Amino acid sequence: MLRGNHNVKRIAIYPGTFDPITYGHLDVIDRAVEIFDEVIVAVAHNSSKQPMFSTQERVKLLKDTLKKYKNVKVDYFDMLLVEYAREKKAAAIIRGLRAISDFEYEFQMALTNRKLADRITTVFLMPHEKYTYLNSSLVREIALFGGRVSGFVPPNIRKALKRKVQSIRNNR
Amino acid sequence: MLRGNHNVKRIAIYPGTFDPITYGHLDVIDRAVEIFDEVIVAVAHNSSKQPMFSTQERVKLLKDTLKKYKNVKVDYFDMLLVEYAREKKAAAIIRGLRAISDFEYEFQMALTNRKLADRITTVFLMPHEKYTYLNSSLVREIALFGGRVSGFVPPNIRKALKRKVQSIRNNR
Amino acid sequence: MLRGNHNVKRIAIYPGTFDPITYGHLDVIDRAVEIFDEVIVAVAHNSSKQPMFSTQERVKLLKDTLKKYKNVKVDYFDMLLVEYAREKKAAAIIRGLRAISDFEYEFQMALTNRKLADRITTVFLMPHEKYTYLNSSLVREIALFGGRVSGFVPPNIRKALKRKVQSIRNNR
Amino acid sequence: MLRGNHNVKRIAIYPGTFDPITYGHLDVIDRAVEIFDEVIVAVAHNSSKQPMFSTQERVKLLKDTLKKYKNVKVDYFDMLLVEYAREKKAAAIIRGLRAISDFEYEFQMALTNRKLADRITTVFLMPHEKYTYLNSSLVREIALFGGRVSGFVPPNIRKALKRKVQSIRNNR
Amino acid sequence: MLRGNHNVKRIAIYPGTFDPITYGHLDVIDRAVEIFDEVIVAVAHNSSKQPMFSTQERVKLLKDTLKKYKNVKVDYFDMLLVEYAREKKAAAIIRGLRAISDFEYEFQMALTNRKLADRITTVFLMPHEKYTYLNSSLVREIALFGGRVSGFVPPNIRKALKRKVQSIRNNR
Amino acid sequence: MLRGNHNVKRIAIYPGTFDPITYGHLDVIDRAVEIFDEVIVAVAHNSSKQPMFSTQERVKLLKDTLKKYKNVKVDYFDMLLVEYAREKKAAAIIRGLRAISDFEYEFQMALTNRKLADRITTVFLMPHEKYTYLNSSLVREIALFGGRVSGFVPPNIRKALKRKVQSIRNNR
Repeated sequence: MLRGNHNVKRIAIYPGTFDPITYGHLDVIDRAVEIFDEVIVAVAHNSSKQPMFSTQERVKLLKDTLKKYKNVKVDYFDMLLVEYAREKKAAAIIRGLRAISDFEYEFQMALTNRKLADRITTVFLMPHEKYTYLNSSLVREIALFGGRVSGFVPPNIRKALKRKVQSIRNNR
Repeated sequence: MLRGNHNVKRIAIYPGTFDPITYGHLDVIDRAVEIFDEVIVAVAHNSSKQPMFSTQERVKLLKDTLKKYKNVKVDYFDMLLVEYAREKKAAAIIRGLRAISDFEYEFQMALTNRKLADRITTVFLMPHEKYTYLNSSLVREIALFGGRVSGFVPPNIRKALKRKVQSIRNNR
Repeated sequence: MLRGNHNVKRIAIYPGTFDPITYGHLDVIDRAVEIFDEVIVAVAHNSSKQPMFSTQERVKLLKDTLKKYKNVKVDYFDMLLVEYAREKKAAAIIRGLRAISDFEYEFQMALTNRKLADRITTVFLMPHEKYTYLNSSLVREIALFGGRVSGFVPPNIRKALKRKVQSIRNNR
Repeated sequence: MLRGNHNVKRIAIYPGTFDPITYGHLDVIDRAVEIFDEVIVAVAHNSSKQPMFSTQERVKLLKDTLKKYKNVKVDYFDMLLVEYAREKKAAAIIRGLRAISDFEYEFQMALTNRKLADRITTVFLMPHEKYTYLNSSLVREIALFGGRVSGFVPPNIRKALKRKVQSIRNNR
Repeated sequence: MLRGNHNVKRIAIYPGTFDPITYGHLDVIDRAVEIFDEVIVAVAHNSSKQPMFSTQERVKLLKDTLKKYKNVKVDYFDMLLVEYAREKKAAAIIRGLRAISDFEYEFQMALTNRKLADRITTVFLMPHEKYTYLNSSLVREIALFGGRVSGFVPPNIRKALKRKVQSIRNNR
Repeated sequence: MLRGNHNVKRIAIYPGTFDPITYGHLDVIDRAVEIFDEVIVAVAHNSSKQPMFSTQERVKLLKDTLKKYKNVKVDYFDMLLVEYAREKKAAAIIRGLRAISDFEYEFQMALTNRKLADRITTVFLMPHEKYTYLNSSLVREIALFGGRVSGFVPPNIRKALKRKVQSIRNNR
């Protein structure tokens, strides 16, 4: 079965902080792999913000969490997103759109990226409503207070959070 | 070049009223044809609302406007959107997301459709910022007052609007 | 156990169109009965809008749906809401707040009611996230197209919708 | 006069930073004491943020400001809010909902708390419109610039702000 | 005292339905007359909507309400707003911006008008917070139910509403 | 040609951080100079935030960028905005209103300023849609990554950004 550009592999970048990955992110990836030939889940390395997990740790946790997907790759980037997307020959940037608070920031980013690299399309996917108000900072906060995060993140992340919180407490 | 499901043609439905199609819709279609193997632009036949152009006229105008796209089909539907999408074996429903006023309605629709047909993903694309605040009802209003619509719709639609407004005036 | 005003029964009005009642409304009522001594679910009789179910039918369906609650009464009103609340000696008006699209309308109403009757407090409750985007007009639309509504309304309402849609079709 | 659960004292937590308490908070408390048997105004002790007034100072200022209410207690907490609410056997968490910027954060919190402790209901109350855009950080900013805050906070807070600003200036 | 264009009278149009004028509109006009040399309060004649007061009645009520302002004129228009503004040689269109629900509609209008007539600037003024949630349809609704509108509209409008509601009731 | 207050020069303050000025700000100024006799573009000196350009540098860059406007002055202020506006005998404060994310913050400020200084009107102007999602922090971020900013800021600012980024890199 051919399409217009039948010899082009459609690659999409799913950029994020993933500090840590949640069921909301997983739900977006579940959808994205059905639409694109390859999805690159790319950790944004941000030297100014202080993440809970280092870039290296986040890449490792993502690889572990996403190993079941055949057409998913995990990577990180430390440049303008559109430059990275161009390098990877991506046709699209995937963003999860959960709530209005995301909306304007996402639009600003999408429009700016469109101005900087017109042929890369931003594609918004909507996670399941049960993940609408879920985000990584909430998960980190609950974990730091010793609350239950098993409804929000997969088991390997739950364990990583436990170890991390333990190590933070030990270092105080 | 193969992908995960290499023998599946990825079909997307782009539903709407298209009364009439604007440059904003065209911008969304321009993006969608790069991501999907086939895009079905589908006029929603709504028996309760009184459109300016009949379903038949809108299908005809869309066909005329979109004839340059090889992987675009024009159709109409008169059932629940998800039923129609299932019939067409579509993997995705495309929606243009322009502004916050669209947002919640679109989310309600996307979540409801997801509940009714879980495997059909709603994909949001963002038209160019210059079309952010453009919509069909604005175009109809400007046309009815005799204003210039050439910045908002392609030439064939501009002519159809002129004829339609003329015929409305003659029938008063 | 006494409170400040221990001889005052705390009554709240939960006004709405309820055309028909959904699981979202039920979720709000489930919460309200825990906070107030008596909850009056009150159908707004609106002579200008054309509802699917008449005021009488809606009162009957509500009574049937809500009979298991001991401290819930069903009623209707055809006057300014605050006048009705005053008549019923209600301390509060309950509103479900689901999404931003509700927000400003609800605020306008709450502030206006506060201006008209200062001692009646509007109390906002939030339905479960799975009902965030559920509303009666969506249910009516799905029912009219013959779609499944069992995830959105209780069984008695599902049956009433079926009969109503059948009768609408027969009368066409 | 009995209610369903007539032997249960209805307790609500009103959590916040209260740095410092404003007329907007007071307006919410004015309403809450009419609905609940006991309202616990609870200062969130947040070790990472640097408040203007210490937790201890805020508790003291709240006690002073709220002494006229018979069914109000002042406390602070340093754990997940729902854990604190469970400890206090609270039926509800009260939140003032002023503007859309509050909305999504509040919803996220309310839904997360509901997931963590299903039987605790979040109740939103709306302060008077004249306090819609009033918040503590604005009050602090005006005070730091030496502007008049008497329209925004009660006299004891105005005095405390004056002393605090004076002490900040002396320590520079 | 000269300015850049010292021989140009700065004219602004304040368009609206004014069905009827409220204290919110008056507050905007109070501000506009301080900024512009002449403010034309212009009733939009909309043949499709059914107003409570006819265009003629609204012009008359506005003239009566606004007679104390020396640099205010009252008019109506039945064409595209920008055409009308051009005819009147207006430099600006004034809009009251009260709440987010106004925001996107107003932006769409402002951007469209800017596209149609680039040199006419839309100027947004914000009414006093106590009028934030006040609008004409609310006033009409309260009046139709026999509620008190004296906090929302000036005395002459209150009387006109009373007469109008009486005449509507007599004609039923 | 006289107006009501023909011997009063209408002065407006356009306050901001301007770190750095963008085409969005310039578009607002372009409009403001048509409405007011004098526009004072005033850099907010904020001792707590760490800007990219110092207050002095920003004043200098603004003066350079705005020298073509005859009725524009550049200044900075280090006090409550309304105090500054009063000192300058300004009738209005100008704010660009781009997107909903601006909206509530701007409203809070405008209402607070109105409370603190009732006779100073906040006037909102809307930049061209192509600058809707443009802001200074985005420009700084793109510049820091070495991306192209020529579509967002005038040439003198582009050069200043280049020098600044170079100097930041050298100092690391």
